[in-house]
Amino acid sequence: MKKLINKPEDVVKEELEGLALAYPDIVKVHFDPDYVYRADAPVKGKVALISGGGSGHEPMHGGLVGLGMLDGACPGQVFTSPTPDQMLEAAKMVHGGAGVLYIVKNYTGDVMNFEMAADMARSEGIRVLSILIDDDTAVKDSTWTAGRRGVGTTVLAEKIVGAAAEKGYDLKKLADLCRKVNINGRSMGMALTSCTVPMAGKPTFDLPEDEMEIGVGIHGEPGRERMSLKTADEITEMLALSIIDDPAYSRTVRELDEEKGEWVDVTLEDPPFKAGDQVLAFVNNMGGSAAVELPIIYRKLHEICEKKGLKIVRNLIGPYITSLEMQGCSITLLKMDDELLELWDAPVKTIGMRWGI
Amino acid sequence: MKKLINKPEDVVKEELEGLALAYPDIVKVHFDPDYVYRADAPVKGKVALISGGGSGHEPMHGGLVGLGMLDGACPGQVFTSPTPDQMLEAAKMVHGGAGVLYIVKNYTGDVMNFEMAADMARSEGIRVLSILIDDDTAVKDSTWTAGRRGVGTTVLAEKIVGAAAEKGYDLKKLADLCRKVNINGRSMGMALTSCTVPMAGKPTFDLPEDEMEIGVGIHGEPGRERMSLKTADEITEMLALSIIDDPAYSRTVRELDEEKGEWVDVTLEDPPFKAGDQVLAFVNNMGGSAAVELPIIYRKLHEICEKKGLKIVRNLIGPYITSLEMQGCSITLLKMDDELLELWDAPVKTIGMRWGI
Repeated sequence: MKKLINKPEDVVKEELEGLALAYPDIVKVHFDPDYVYRADAPVKGKVALISGGGSGHEPMHGGLVGLGMLDGACPGQVFTSPTPDQMLEAAKMVHGGAGVLYIVKNYTGDVMNFEMAADMARSEGIRVLSILIDDDTAVKDSTWTAGRRGVGTTVLAEKIVGAAAEKGYDLKKLADLCRKVNINGRSMGMALTSCTVPMAGKPTFDLPEDEMEIGVGIHGEPGRERMSLKTADEITEMLALSIIDDPAYSRTVRELDEEKGEWVDVTLEDPPFKAGDQVLAFVNNMGGSAAVELPIIYRKLHEICEKKGLKIVRNLIGPYITSLEMQGCSITLLKMDDELLELWDAPVKTIGMRWGI
Repeated sequence: MKKLINKPEDVVKEELEGLALAYPDIVKVHFDPDYVYRADAPVKGKVALISGGGSGHEPMHGGLVGLGMLDGACPGQVFTSPTPDQMLEAAKMVHGGAGVLYIVKNYTGDVMNFEMAADMARSEGIRVLSILIDDDTAVKDSTWTAGRRGVGTTVLAEKIVGAAAEKGYDLKKLADLCRKVNINGRSMGMALTSCTVPMAGKPTFDLPEDEMEIGVGIHGEPGRERMSLKTADEITEMLALSIIDDPAYSRTVRELDEEKGEWVDVTLEDPPFKAGDQVLAFVNNMGGSAAVELPIIYRKLHEICEKKGLKIVRNLIGPYITSLEMQGCSITLLKMDDELLELWDAPVKTIGMRWGI
């Protein structure tokens, strides 16, 4: 295993120590339980946003904490859900009196633990709502998930909802906005290579030298199809058309109903993309691909969107939701409107994303 | 070869097409000869900064073009020097009447071609000065270089000199500043894995599963020593101490003397680091290492600098001068003073680096 690490069991702890030393003006780190939080938290009167999940997807989520994005992030061990006590303690640290929104990627462990944490926080008198991100069009269920997985749209939701929180949206309005981003965003990824979880010490899966995996998950979960290597243009077409031609998608998710004080089933339907839509195009590096390759994917994506009548009005290109050193990419398209555009353009200052500050 | 590309010979062209489509507000791209330039070039009355070199080191240099950094960048094919006509045409496009500064990494091909380009530009009436970056402490000469190679300090010089140009420094003062950054910056890199140049189709060098290369160049040139894998802390110590304990370094470089109208030999001496110095610490991802690993390197670097009496006053962590998908890292330390600090903090808006805008 070739990695710039010391003991595999210390990877996350030492990463967090490094972040705390490097960026004291942006984040602080609490250890045991582990969470990253805004250096100026709690921000009085602002709804606090918290996300989290397994480590290994950096900069998501700890690198997305700061002005205009998250107030707190709970990192689990690599590819392992964080625990409810991390989420509870993070909420207690960052809530500024206006409630807490949990942004949760749809993985079984994350969902279960954030639900427990929300209940515990409520029992301690903190208003909490929780919104699920399930934007991966690749597979309906997977080894790690009931329903679609939460991937690239999470980064976009954290940016947009973070800007809205900064602007003064209340908790209910932020939850509605986060749900809106989720249903309007769709993603699909692919892997040229596997990645190696430090504690495992060997590649998560085997991928022969002449094969790739289309629709792979961010933990290396199997995707739609394993096939022989294709060109960047062919790969982009497969990913983009899977997203653009994905029909309306209905599912039932559990959300916390504040008035009833309980978790209720909510049916959501993702509207399909249609000609004339304005979109944000996000080309994500899975981590290990050379930076020179991403614009080649974007170039073809731009052409496909044009052909399909989708107008790219904003973009994001780079490693934002990674899978350790996996080579490959994912594409996310998010249908935009004036509200989302204004929030996307708002200032942000985090470790992994900054502009306007 | 596993890459997100189409034909190997089209990699750079298609990358540039992608950049042009994605970032029209920041850069424009001229094809044949190829160069990237500021969308608002020429900026009247400002000295124009131009750099360049082989592709495969993204975001350097095309991704460092924009307000507060470069005015133009000339990309060669992957790991191949750009040609004098690229450098000449870029100069003609971006010069705003106050002269052009070429920032040149010390590789034989780059040096020769920038020298020819400077002579051609001068014969067309453009004032040009040219400063060499040679900050790699690993080896004195290498397969690609007479003298030390130019690496991480280049990124820092482009940021700092770019800010000074924006502020109105004249050509001579910018050349002096760039030379000052060069002699106060030192770097050293290491590789866990090789990388594959698309046109070659196979790894540049072989590195067994249990070995790494200390002092590697950004094109995979041999470094100081090949050895068995070490921990992140041990690696950091080797790189950092090589830099910090590097004695004064004297060499003669060729610079253009405007008054004499010819290239003259200039002797430069890098002052060694000493306790009490303020430094910028730059931990660079060679491209393919997982993002979670870099803060682990920074953590140890911070400890070593403290022990040595060096105060880290700024930092930069991430993939800025890459070697395609090579796994590994490099460390650069730059001795800072009030002038450099103010320029470092100044606004910048490029594809690869942005803050304050």
